[in-house]
Order: sequence, then C-alpha cells, then structure tokens
Amino acid sequence: MTPKERAQSVADHMWAADQASPWFGMELAEIDEGRAVLTLTVAAHHLNGHGICHGGVIFALADSAFAFACNSRNQSTVAQHNTITYISPAQPGDRLTASAREITLTGRSGLTDVTVTNQTGAVIAEFRGASRTLKGQVCSQEIET
Amino acid sequence: MTPKERAQSVADHMWAADQASPWFGMELAEIDEGRAVLTLTVAAHHLNGHGICHGGVIFALADSAFAFACNSRNQSTVAQHNTITYISPAQPGDRLTASAREITLTGRSGLTDVTVTNQTGAVIAEFRGASRTLKGQVCSQEIET
Amino acid sequence: MTPKERAQSVADHMWAADQASPWFGMELAEIDEGRAVLTLTVAAHHLNGHGICHGGVIFALADSAFAFACNSRNQSTVAQHNTITYISPAQPGDRLTASAREITLTGRSGLTDVTVTNQTGAVIAEFRGASRTLKGQVCSQEIET
Amino acid sequence: MTPKERAQSVADHMWAADQASPWFGMELAEIDEGRAVLTLTVAAHHLNGHGICHGGVIFALADSAFAFACNSRNQSTVAQHNTITYISPAQPGDRLTASAREITLTGRSGLTDVTVTNQTGAVIAEFRGASRTLKGQVCSQEIET
Repeated sequence: MTPKERAQSVADHMWAADQASPWFGMELAEIDEGRAVLTLTVAAHHLNGHGICHGGVIFALADSAFAFACNSRNQSTVAQHNTITYISPAQPGDRLTASAREITLTGRSGLTDVTVTNQTGAVIAEFRGASRTLKGQVCSQEIET
Repeated sequence: MTPKERAQSVADHMWAADQASPWFGMELAEIDEGRAVLTLTVAAHHLNGHGICHGGVIFALADSAFAFACNSRNQSTVAQHNTITYISPAQPGDRLTASAREITLTGRSGLTDVTVTNQTGAVIAEFRGASRTLKGQVCSQEIET
Repeated sequence: MTPKERAQSVADHMWAADQASPWFGMELAEIDEGRAVLTLTVAAHHLNGHGICHGGVIFALADSAFAFACNSRNQSTVAQHNTITYISPAQPGDRLTASAREITLTGRSGLTDVTVTNQTGAVIAEFRGASRTLKGQVCSQEIET
Repeated sequence: MTPKERAQSVADHMWAADQASPWFGMELAEIDEGRAVLTLTVAAHHLNGHGICHGGVIFALADSAFAFACNSRNQSTVAQHNTITYISPAQPGDRLTASAREITLTGRSGLTDVTVTNQTGAVIAEFRGASRTLKGQVCSQEIET
C-alpha cells in the first residue's frame, strides 16, 4: 500500500464516521499523505446577517481539510491552535475549495496550512492549524504502507 | 436609548437577517455593548469522525458571539484574524455557552475574546478575534444612544 | 513553602540563568503562581526604521513574562504557539509593563495572556501564548509547596 | 527602476534608520518585492534560562524580515497580528535565516509568511504576519518603478 493509498483508506474511514462534514455540505475531492482538498458550495443557510458566508462555515471547511491531511498517516491527530485570516468575503453560490498541505511535522507536533479559494481562484481565507498526534490509529484495520 | 438597548436593537436586526446561526442551532442568550452570549447544544450532526463536536461548530459558535459583540455599537464590523485554542473536546449533548467580551477598541481595530464552556463550566475553547470597523451602520433605523 | 514562594524561587533561578532578558533591558517586577510582571524602558537601540519600538522587543518582553508565569510551578514549560496583536506603538522612553496571567492549564497544555501597557496605562499589545509542560523541573533543589 | 531595485532602495533607507535590527545582530541578506531574507547568529546574550535562543529573538528576526518584505513597495506598512509557532529550539552558535514572502495582498491588508531555519536547513519556527498599509511612503525620494 502506498502512502497515498493509506491516506485514501483513512479518509474513507473518517468520512464514513463524520456526520458534521456532510451536514455542512462538504465533499472530499482529493487526499494524499499530508494533503487534502475539500469543497463546499455556499448555500442560503450558510449566510450571516451581512448576506455573506458565515466565517464559521469557511473555518469549518478549512478545519475539515486540515483534519483529513493531519490524520492521513493513520495516526490519530487533533487540532490544538488554529488561526484564520479572512481575505475576501464568500458570496452565495460560490464554490469554495480548501486545499490543505502539511508544512512541518516534528515529533508529535504538526503545522498544516489551508488556503480557501472560490471558483475564480480568488483567495477567501488563509488558515493555519497546529496539530498534535495522539496514541492510537484512526483506522484499526491493517493499512500499513 | 442606553448602550445596552442599542446593542439589543442591533442584535435583533442582525439575528433576523442571519440564516447561518439558527441553522447551526445557536441561540442568543445575552447582549450588551461589547458583549454577547450565545448557546448551542451539540447534536449528532455536529459530530466529526472521532465522535466529538467538530471544531468548526465550536469555532462558529464563538465567531457568532464575537460578531454580535463587535457590532453592538451599530457600526458595521467584520472579522480579520481569528484564533482558537481547543482545551477539551465537546461531547454529544453538551450545552455550550460562548461568552464574548471586547478587550480593546482603538480607532477601527478591536480585539474580542470569547470563552466557550460546557454545562459543567469546563472550558472547551478560547477564541480571540481581531475586528475592523467599516463605514456604515448595521441597522439604518434611528437607534442612537 | 507557599505557591508564591515557590514561584519566586523558580523565577530567581530562571533569572540568574537568563542572559537575554537582562540584555533586552527587562526587569522582573512581580511573580506568583501562573502570574508574572516584567518591565522595560524603550531605549534608542529598541527603535525600528519608523522611530518606534521594534515589534520584536515588545514581543520579547511579553514572551519573557509568559515564560516566568508558565514555569512558576517548577515544571519545565516551553512555548508552542504565540500570537501578538499590536494596539498602539511604543515610543522612545516609554516604560512598558507586561502582565502575564495563566488562563487555562489542562494536562500539559496551558494558555497564558499577557497585556503590555505603557506608563499611562494605554494598551500597547495583547499577547496570547500556548505552552506545553515537559518532563523535568526548572530548579532541581527542593522547593515543594 | 524595477520592482526589485525599488525594494532595494526602500530597504537601504529602512536599514539606515533601523537601530534595533543591527543591535539584535541581524543582517539583511536579500530583498525583492514582497520578499526579504535576514540572518542572525545566536550569541550568548540571546540565550534564555534554558540555554537556548530566547523566543523573542527568533520572533524579532522573523518580524524584521516581515517588515522589509511588507514595505518593499515603498508604501508604509505596519504589523497588526503576528503569530509564531516554535518547531525546534535554536542553539548557541546557530546561524538563523528568516525568509519572508508575501502570500496575499488585498487592498490595504497583507499576509506574509516567514520561515526561520538554521544552518542545516532545519525549521526553527514558522511565523505568519498580517499587515496593514498606511498612507505615506517609507522613502520620500523618487523611486517609482
């Protein structure tokens, strides 16, 4: 099994157990070791009082991409400290893409950046997540590389 | 009109226009100038693949509390850079409370801290949001203090 | 030995070994369990190209206050992720005070806020530091409470 | 004048006025539009009570690189919210390099990432800075591209 295949197996396992990401309207588009891409189309129920996408929805999309990237080695990994910078508002109907890539992994501590763009490629937000690996695997079945 | 009455009027106006916060399951519990308290009960559709509340839901709750606090002077205000530190996981059925209080406001730049606790008072997350005031009011009707 | 006495013993030990904090021009003003206050007067060599105090000097002052607060239980503790928000510039001759107070400590993870003010009480910066406790003590001598 | 030549002119102007960066022991190694590289060798007076480089010194190095990158278009630009994640400690004698590159610039708001490495290429810290452009130029002389 290649690292990418293992990442795919873990992601399939996580996705099947994840009730929130589908509820938000997310789809998992790509997965690899230390990388994940998720998408979401901004719907009416995602809009805040200014008529633009609620920042929590944009954050959640980035956070799910971060989680799929962090857990891709089949080591249970959780978020510790996440930051988001809002660059441009996301409008109703926008097709958002969150691309996560791990930038460092030292011992149990990882750092993963996620860029959220819309259908024109404009940057909506930049997210940086600091993770910590726990004991235990995401997926107990044999999926070693 | 007192500052608290103005904050209530702005919040009523924002809440009526906000589709996302009710969709998440939030309720607005308290409002004052530079302060807001929102609550949410963790439901099955809020759970991630680890069976605990998705970080994006916790963030969104804090982010809404932040937004209600920031806009409480009836000046349109948006988030720029928000950070969240996860302290303890939120479990299914937990009743979460996000309490926002502005800590500084200098010119157009504000800083607001939000603590998210559960029904036992345990801290679930600490959120810090940096905001910027735009031109224009949240609510055009006359609600001056 | 009270918690405050232990904090003082640890701080004395740390200060004696710390070459950077005195080099910056810092002084340790107060110490208690989970709390520390440090001061620094802005000198000519602290100024950046805009003629105001270099942000790194303000950060360093807050970071030292954070470190003294974090280590006050005599458990070796290090910074993981620190954020600073600049509120007002610090001018030459300003007397800066950094007041650190631990806001959460859960297992090995702590969160400590530091407010930097000047001699008029104006807020210069707000700092938030996330720490992690390591194995080992700061000070090996017997200083149990 | 090319963008790189303008960046060099602005940097020369800033460096001549900057008392803090040389005092820290920094050197300016490279400059271009939206990019800057600074270096510093960890000296005895940079060490904290654990015998490793004080986090404020690492932050200051990254912060100076950030400032040179942000101001490279000759528009006065200041830091608003900076975050640093410490990856590995920096040891006495380490030769640190901070490489800053602007990742977004939208209106007056910019985001610049800085990676600090040592002489072996190991990552010491990751810094992310959010800036805001003010009215006015860094350097009043004619240096238009």
